[in-house]
Amino acid sequence: MQTLTISDLAERALIARITARVTTASWVVRGPGDDAAVIKPARGTFDVVTTDALVDGVHFDRRFVPPSAIGHRALAVNLSDLAAMGATPRAALLSLALPGGLSIESFDQMLDGFLALADIHHVVLVGGNITSTPGPLTIDVTAIGAARPRRVLGRDGGRPGDEVYVTGRLGDAAVGLQQLRQASDGKTLPIPADPSAANRYLYPLPRVRAGLLLARNRAASSCMDLSDGLADGVHQIAEKSGVGITIDEASLPISPVVRRWQEALGRDPLELALVGGDDYELIFTVRPTHKGRLRAVRGVLGDLPITRIGVVTRARQVVLKGESGLRALPSGYEHFRS
Amino acid sequence: MQTLTISDLAERALIARITARVTTASWVVRGPGDDAAVIKPARGTFDVVTTDALVDGVHFDRRFVPPSAIGHRALAVNLSDLAAMGATPRAALLSLALPGGLSIESFDQMLDGFLALADIHHVVLVGGNITSTPGPLTIDVTAIGAARPRRVLGRDGGRPGDEVYVTGRLGDAAVGLQQLRQASDGKTLPIPADPSAANRYLYPLPRVRAGLLLARNRAASSCMDLSDGLADGVHQIAEKSGVGITIDEASLPISPVVRRWQEALGRDPLELALVGGDDYELIFTVRPTHKGRLRAVRGVLGDLPITRIGVVTRARQVVLKGESGLRALPSGYEHFRS
Repeated sequence: MQTLTISDLAERALIARITARVTTASWVVRGPGDDAAVIKPARGTFDVVTTDALVDGVHFDRRFVPPSAIGHRALAVNLSDLAAMGATPRAALLSLALPGGLSIESFDQMLDGFLALADIHHVVLVGGNITSTPGPLTIDVTAIGAARPRRVLGRDGGRPGDEVYVTGRLGDAAVGLQQLRQASDGKTLPIPADPSAANRYLYPLPRVRAGLLLARNRAASSCMDLSDGLADGVHQIAEKSGVGITIDEASLPISPVVRRWQEALGRDPLELALVGGDDYELIFTVRPTHKGRLRAVRGVLGDLPITRIGVVTRARQVVLKGESGLRALPSGYEHFRS
Repeated sequence: MQTLTISDLAERALIARITARVTTASWVVRGPGDDAAVIKPARGTFDVVTTDALVDGVHFDRRFVPPSAIGHRALAVNLSDLAAMGATPRAALLSLALPGGLSIESFDQMLDGFLALADIHHVVLVGGNITSTPGPLTIDVTAIGAARPRRVLGRDGGRPGDEVYVTGRLGDAAVGLQQLRQASDGKTLPIPADPSAANRYLYPLPRVRAGLLLARNRAASSCMDLSDGLADGVHQIAEKSGVGITIDEASLPISPVVRRWQEALGRDPLELALVGGDDYELIFTVRPTHKGRLRAVRGVLGDLPITRIGVVTRARQVVLKGESGLRALPSGYEHFRS
């Protein structure tokens, strides 16, 4: 039996496969099926909007990233951006550029991954667009959220004396990616692969609740998500806030998974924690006088670790404080850099 | 001297080239540069959101579509969707997937085209995303507009007895595309190319003002834009409204440009007017009792032709009425159809 592919179906049939599965909400005045979607803004809030695209061969490798993970990740990276602003996610637009040879099964699974995460966060898919492409699968999501005025978390609110925190653990997703890639290349891994690390890479959990609580309680003075690694996040917050940041090396929440992997490779665990991307944790700053607010947020969040990793300084330098003293924090990963 | 290309610049340098040129507005709480943009909704309005992507080799051909036209068109197709909903455009997000070999000059010119049209319609570029791609240039725009409750124009409001209208003229853009393509292929055109037709294809003008006035005056009962040609628009409105439509062949606003071109090729001008896409005119229906409202809209719009082309019927058939009687209206163009 031949596999049914995208080129066997008309654009409208593909759209119908999506719209048949979308849920709605009271504030969605018009969902998919018209020239545009119509949404009633939440009373007394600002709209928070972001867009991010994943391209096959750039942001994921279909040899080891299953379609459901592609769909999940495409939404997750956008929800992570909303979380970093302290916004409640509400709606998403899905724009797909599909190669003709993509199987309908993969298309449906990609949608499964997208909709499963949307469901968890009550995100309504209100519209989108499908086109063919002679190039790689490209999935572009726009996410729309709501945030109260004066509760928006920017990157620019850090002040000298603020303490720097990070949610979750650093480097697990990078380990997952390396293990998946090596296994896919047929290499023998130095230690057994860790399925939880792979999961952290394939199905990252955007810290929506943490971002929302930090904003609502006015606990954070600035916030950003770690899509491109901790080092990048620290540099960005320092730059946008016009301050310096000193990171305490020993305090970084590096899990045993990362330590074991890096040690097996004869590498420093710190390296992966600093420049490994894809963690989608939040980095944020807290005024010393607002520690009580942070305590309240911790109480509600429960299991999610929140670790103090450094301090904001007046001197505009971004440094790492270790056993051997201070050194400049390396920059993060960036596209196009050759 | 070597041409500077995308791969010579880091992602951040490309973003800086864009942000240096964006304007802002009082309702933009946060523009580009953070995890997401923050927008204050217009008082008493709904958000109207749409997304549409253009892919090199699918939606345009760089051999004869200059970069400024790519930028212009990417925004225009989205503003046209907002116009069809009767919404005032406000903000846009620009998501670019760029091949490494694209010249910086082309990148800047694409931005020129995008921003020039944004400027005309007071659209603020509030955010976006840039990534590299091993595939074709892909430009994905999300447009955000505002519409008053009960002033939104859907595709589903047509009722038997309503009259069907179209703005502007039909087929000019399709002529432009054919002439540009043939000239680019080195073919000798049967008649001299018409620069105005090429212009209609390269730099379509979304009918933002017309859509807005039709909505504000409650003149239209349904509306849609003609991105995929008149026949597609007629079918969609009929289907979504659960009605039939009879189009009067003789009334269609076909310009001399289209007639001359089709006659030189020994083809029926009607064909291009029906299935030629890229016109981005509006099709809409008007209740017989609301003709006065349409007259008011016409008065304000001035030069833009608005032509009555048919009538909505109870019988759910979409037909073309010509000299030789009635016949089924062909369907429009669709992606993926092989």
